[in-house]
Amino acid sequence: MSTSTAIGGPLQARSAPSTGAARRSSTEPDPAVLRSLEALCRRRGLGSLAERIGDLAELVRWDMAEVETALRSLPRSERAVHRGAHHLLDQGGKRLRPLCVALAARMGTGFSEAARELGVAVELVHCATLLHDDVVDDGEQRRGAPAARTIYGNAASIFAGDWLLVHALQRVRRTGIDGTLDRLLTIIDEMIAAESLQLESRGQLDLGAERYFAVVEGKTAALFRWAMYAGAKAGGATETEAKALESYGDHLGVAFQLVDDLLDYGGDADTTGKALFADLREGKATHPLILARERDPQVEGLVRTVLENDGDDAALAEAHALLAAAIEGCGAIDDCRALAGEHARLAVEALEPFTDGPAKTALITVARATVHRER
Amino acid sequence: MSTSTAIGGPLQARSAPSTGAARRSSTEPDPAVLRSLEALCRRRGLGSLAERIGDLAELVRWDMAEVETALRSLPRSERAVHRGAHHLLDQGGKRLRPLCVALAARMGTGFSEAARELGVAVELVHCATLLHDDVVDDGEQRRGAPAARTIYGNAASIFAGDWLLVHALQRVRRTGIDGTLDRLLTIIDEMIAAESLQLESRGQLDLGAERYFAVVEGKTAALFRWAMYAGAKAGGATETEAKALESYGDHLGVAFQLVDDLLDYGGDADTTGKALFADLREGKATHPLILARERDPQVEGLVRTVLENDGDDAALAEAHALLAAAIEGCGAIDDCRALAGEHARLAVEALEPFTDGPAKTALITVARATVHRER
Repeated sequence: MSTSTAIGGPLQARSAPSTGAARRSSTEPDPAVLRSLEALCRRRGLGSLAERIGDLAELVRWDMAEVETALRSLPRSERAVHRGAHHLLDQGGKRLRPLCVALAARMGTGFSEAARELGVAVELVHCATLLHDDVVDDGEQRRGAPAARTIYGNAASIFAGDWLLVHALQRVRRTGIDGTLDRLLTIIDEMIAAESLQLESRGQLDLGAERYFAVVEGKTAALFRWAMYAGAKAGGATETEAKALESYGDHLGVAFQLVDDLLDYGGDADTTGKALFADLREGKATHPLILARERDPQVEGLVRTVLENDGDDAALAEAHALLAAAIEGCGAIDDCRALAGEHARLAVEALEPFTDGPAKTALITVARATVHRER
Repeated sequence: MSTSTAIGGPLQARSAPSTGAARRSSTEPDPAVLRSLEALCRRRGLGSLAERIGDLAELVRWDMAEVETALRSLPRSERAVHRGAHHLLDQGGKRLRPLCVALAARMGTGFSEAARELGVAVELVHCATLLHDDVVDDGEQRRGAPAARTIYGNAASIFAGDWLLVHALQRVRRTGIDGTLDRLLTIIDEMIAAESLQLESRGQLDLGAERYFAVVEGKTAALFRWAMYAGAKAGGATETEAKALESYGDHLGVAFQLVDDLLDYGGDADTTGKALFADLREGKATHPLILARERDPQVEGLVRTVLENDGDDAALAEAHALLAAAIEGCGAIDDCRALAGEHARLAVEALEPFTDGPAKTALITVARATVHRER
């Protein structure tokens, strides 16, 4: 166990607040994403999952509030690099990676200043990749708002990504928690390789499943793996325990990406905060499309119609609708969500060696809820 | 002293080869840039400086060959991220920052595997910034060849920069030399802030000297500072000694940038490997222009003529020639080189506390030669 930290004195692990009273009396921040997911599950008649999401929100509300405060307390200035970064950070986001850090820490000795710092760092690395990705993909929208690069320019978005990355590494470094920095550098290396693979696969709509999953593993699952590992180490986990939690993160990440990809075809732009069919437009073949192309010979032509549209909005809307219907109709969306469900199950399975408790229950809830999310 | 390393076993400090015999018998790689600088000094009648550059080249030839081998041994693959990075690395370059690491290490216990790794790292960080800068500036040429982004695309150039940065940090981390990683992260943070400041100052051709030097300090001098610090620590220097060598790096960096900036107006494109007037084209006011605008009221109009040229190559060549003549004519180039000379003097002054020896002589030579360089 190596949980000493250089940040603001010794660590103080905090236990979960007692739920009932805290929930009623508190007027403090609430993880908004979890609450909307809770409401969604209720609407869908998934009452017991809704209940568990409520408990989860209660368990981590203070942890997540601390992460949020720290994210908003990053240096600000009139400099475009800072403004571009804060523009993205201020949009909020699911903060699912910091949530993983918090819960992994709570599987051990609890949430702490070090866990908070690692949670902040993982979100910063994630945001750094978004800032660079938006430049690479000419992204217009991000988290329901104009992408930073559309306001501050591509150059500022590149530097802002560089800045957040360096800032994240500094924070991880300062926690002094053994293994976290080395592993994060390795993970970022994997992320870059996966982004590069995705870049080169652009326009290859006949991309095989193998290559698709290689991209998913590197660009998404890798950072979830690190979030769980880092949180585990902050909570004093042994290497064996940390590895089990890493495996949870790995499967959660794949499930998360699968749902992300299906929402691009079958989601609602107002809910997701992203323009639909973005992957297709960027020439990225994702799992729903890969499945649909195998199953429905019409999909090929519909894709071509979408890609060859030269600015006729009405025709494009119709082509989108037909393509979405074809992908939905051949069961690709359902099967994609089912595969996400299978990865969620494997994530839960990875928790088996651990004794039951609120953090374990919460992690199980996160895995299950990820499959049902609509944003 | 903390010179243990995790890379390939214990450190073996090597002393300088005895010059005379080694120089005659060896057929091993030669630091090409130093040799061309030596020849230049001879042509200019600076015989004793030429002689010293020869000694310097001899002193570090094996160190630099090791750095070069390591740089070329970075993972290669068909991936654009790797090809883009190697495209730049394979162009060579002055390798002045690794040279600083090597000489700073030789001020102490000598060049070692750790020093080599730190030398590789500093060059990788430098190359990472070049890859991102070329995207930011729409750079076409770099080191006399097409910029990586013109071959592999902007996206690959961004990821390649990210990759080199992470790879550099991993190498520094693995040396385990106290303070080097933390300080490098801080330095990169400074570099990003300076790049951002430069970005926002674009098009402000009335940029004051203060802001210009703030940019120079962050974007150039900072990394030279780190090179000297890192080399010093690898050579077992005390913090006080390391700080003195940092001060050398700081002044050397400013001198280097001043010469870079004057070569953009008064250099020879074939020699520098860069298109001339690039700074002006990118809207960057540098010291020669700042001086010339103060001194010669015609400069303002000549600048406007250059910037407003709409593709008439002959007119542009004439405007360039007139502007270059005006900047030269008012003494701005000479004064810029004189200021570089003053910083070189301050760099040498920072070495005063150290006892004389081949490494100290070499550092003095580097500072003096930097002022005379033509590429």
